[in-house]
Formats: sequence, C-alpha cells, structure tokens
Amino acid sequence: MSLDGFGAGPNQDVENPLGVGGPNLMDWFFHTRIWQEMHGNAAQGEAGVDNEMAAQGFTGIGAWILGRNMFGPVRGPWPDDSWKGWWGEEPPYHTPVFVLTHHARAPLRMKGNTEFRFVTGGLHAALEQARAAAGERDVRIGGGVATIRQYLSAGLIDELHLAVRPVLLGGGEALFAGLDLPALGYECVRHVAGERALHVFLEKR
Amino acid sequence: MSLDGFGAGPNQDVENPLGVGGPNLMDWFFHTRIWQEMHGNAAQGEAGVDNEMAAQGFTGIGAWILGRNMFGPVRGPWPDDSWKGWWGEEPPYHTPVFVLTHHARAPLRMKGNTEFRFVTGGLHAALEQARAAAGERDVRIGGGVATIRQYLSAGLIDELHLAVRPVLLGGGEALFAGLDLPALGYECVRHVAGERALHVFLEKR
Repeated sequence: MSLDGFGAGPNQDVENPLGVGGPNLMDWFFHTRIWQEMHGNAAQGEAGVDNEMAAQGFTGIGAWILGRNMFGPVRGPWPDDSWKGWWGEEPPYHTPVFVLTHHARAPLRMKGNTEFRFVTGGLHAALEQARAAAGERDVRIGGGVATIRQYLSAGLIDELHLAVRPVLLGGGEALFAGLDLPALGYECVRHVAGERALHVFLEKR
Repeated sequence: MSLDGFGAGPNQDVENPLGVGGPNLMDWFFHTRIWQEMHGNAAQGEAGVDNEMAAQGFTGIGAWILGRNMFGPVRGPWPDDSWKGWWGEEPPYHTPVFVLTHHARAPLRMKGNTEFRFVTGGLHAALEQARAAAGERDVRIGGGVATIRQYLSAGLIDELHLAVRPVLLGGGEALFAGLDLPALGYECVRHVAGERALHVFLEKR
C-alpha cells in the first residue's frame, strides 16, 4: 500500500498489470531473494527483512484465491482460452488457485502444479473450495484490492500482511477507504521495518 | 496517521482534543524525551529515533500556524476569552502562533513567549504573517488535518513530516483522501523507522 492508501495503480491493462505506477508498490518484493529465485536468478536478490516477510507468505499455503483482475486484464465473458494469467507457463503458486469470476471457464492446468479453477459462485464458495483443497494448510488471498476488500468486509480474513511503501501514488485502488476495520474486528498485532517497506500484520479478534 | 489513513479521530470535543482514539496516533510522541521534558519530566522519556524525529520538528521554528480546531473545541464566534488553548498557561510553542478562524479575537499572550494571534484573512494571509514573524526561521503548520489538507492543496507546504502509526482507527479525519499528492508536486524523499512509528518526509518539487 502507498502512503496515500492505494493498493494498486489506476488504469490496469495488459501493459500495466498492477495499474499505472503500481510496480512501485511492489518494489520491496522485487529485490528479495525469493522473488529473484522465482525468476531464475537464485544467486541474486537480498536476504533481509523484506525477503523474510515475503517468504513466510509462501510457506504452508495449500490454495490461493485471486480476483478476476489479478488473474488478467480480460473483462466480461472469456473470448477464448488464450489468457493464462500474467505469470507465464509456470506460475509461482504451485497449488490450486481459485479465480473469482462471473463467467464460467474450464480449469487450466499449468506447469509446476498450479491449476487455475474458475469460481462463479462468489467469495464464500471460492473460500469453501479453497479450504477443501488446502486441507491442513492455509488459504492465501492474493488480491487484488477489490477481492481483499470483499473478504475483509465479510470478516473472512484471519491475518493480513500489509507492506506499506514510502511512496505516493496519487490515484488507483484505495485499499481501506470506507472500511471500518476495528468494527470488523481487526487490529494491528505486529509491525516490522523492512529495507523498502513497513510490514504490518492485522489479525481478526 | 493511522494505517487506515486518519490523522485524527472522530468527534473531537473538550474531552477528546485529538478525537476519539486520536491519542493512539500520537503515542510515538508521548514516549519521547522531548515530550516528557515539555511536561516537566526531563529525566524520563526515550532518546531514540522517535525522539530525534520529534526534536527536529521543534528546531529552527519561528512561527506556527494552527487550525481553529487544533486550538480548541469552541466553534463559531468566541463567546468570551476563557478558552486559551489545550496546553495550559505555558504552551510548547514559544513563538507567535497564528490561529486560522472566521471570528476575530484579540491576541493572547501566554507564558514562555507563545502568543496566539487570530487570523481571519484565510490561509494565505496567515502564512504571510507567519513568515514575517519567523524571519529567517521556518514556519511550522501544526495541524489539524483540515488545515494541513488546505495548505497541501494550495501547494504551500515545502516539507511534510508524517509519522505513520501501526494502528487502525476505523474513522476520523482522513489525511490524504481525495488529494493527488504527486500531481500537487509532492514526493517521498526519506523514511526512517522509529520505535513506534514510521517517519516519512514528503517534499514539494
């Protein structure tokens, strides 16, 4: 999240998966060893606090949930099966990934055990399916902003890892605007200053 | 500022100068040596990063500007001269303090060289008078939120020190909502993790 409260930039499209200016929000992650390893540069990347915070978000995850716009820039009915996510042939999930959409589509099996499964039944249905797939492991809601806001509003997120970047975006998708998080049961339980972000952990009472 | 973007709590009144929940936003300051010294506890208080950040905000200041609500809970015309600020007989300013108000009032001389001067001519007039009073020294805009937002919108703030507290407020005075800070010329030039807040410095290009 930026200092001015945005979790993604404005005007997402195929050239701007995170919206215009959005990559600056994730710039703490791009320097980490774990991100560099995902991109085949195992020898590179930094092994500090940011890396530790990023790594724990990939530990013990049995299923992911993504919003439609985090999966891709396609809107409305799927014109064909050509869009397979932003992440190439081998996405970084390695679990079932439940994609919220209003438009049915057959599951999509990718390299490295990622399988995109498209859920038209809404956020509760997606969570139920993700829990069943994850078993004893955790379900991670990857985003984007609208999806996180929906799950927060429904009180369905147990823990939220927020990386506050010291940057200004000026516009985009406001993460918390209009949400009364204490009233929804959330409190800040821990914060750690990383190299390029302040990491904050919210938990539901 | 809270994680959810509030610079003060809701429902300010005489019992809640910072709004309900507002003191939590300032809790990084209350532990500093400089704050403790202001309250006669020179031997107490912590001398870490938070203290250093607070102390530099009181260095080289020749005049302050405050909004009406930061000066007090009285609204509308001044019923009498009984309200003399939240800070007792010796306020922590020790300079002329220009208070924005729609209602004229005679200057108020306090102990320790603080003098409250009430400005009815608007934010530009207040800044002009504060600059003249400050001479070579800086003018500090102390707040509250509405006053900071007005000066930011007018592009009249050169540097802004923001202390981001890892807390959720849920409601109150949103500091940056609806302001496009990059379009107004602001950028984040520095950030320092303190003991109880992330300190961020914005500057106008």
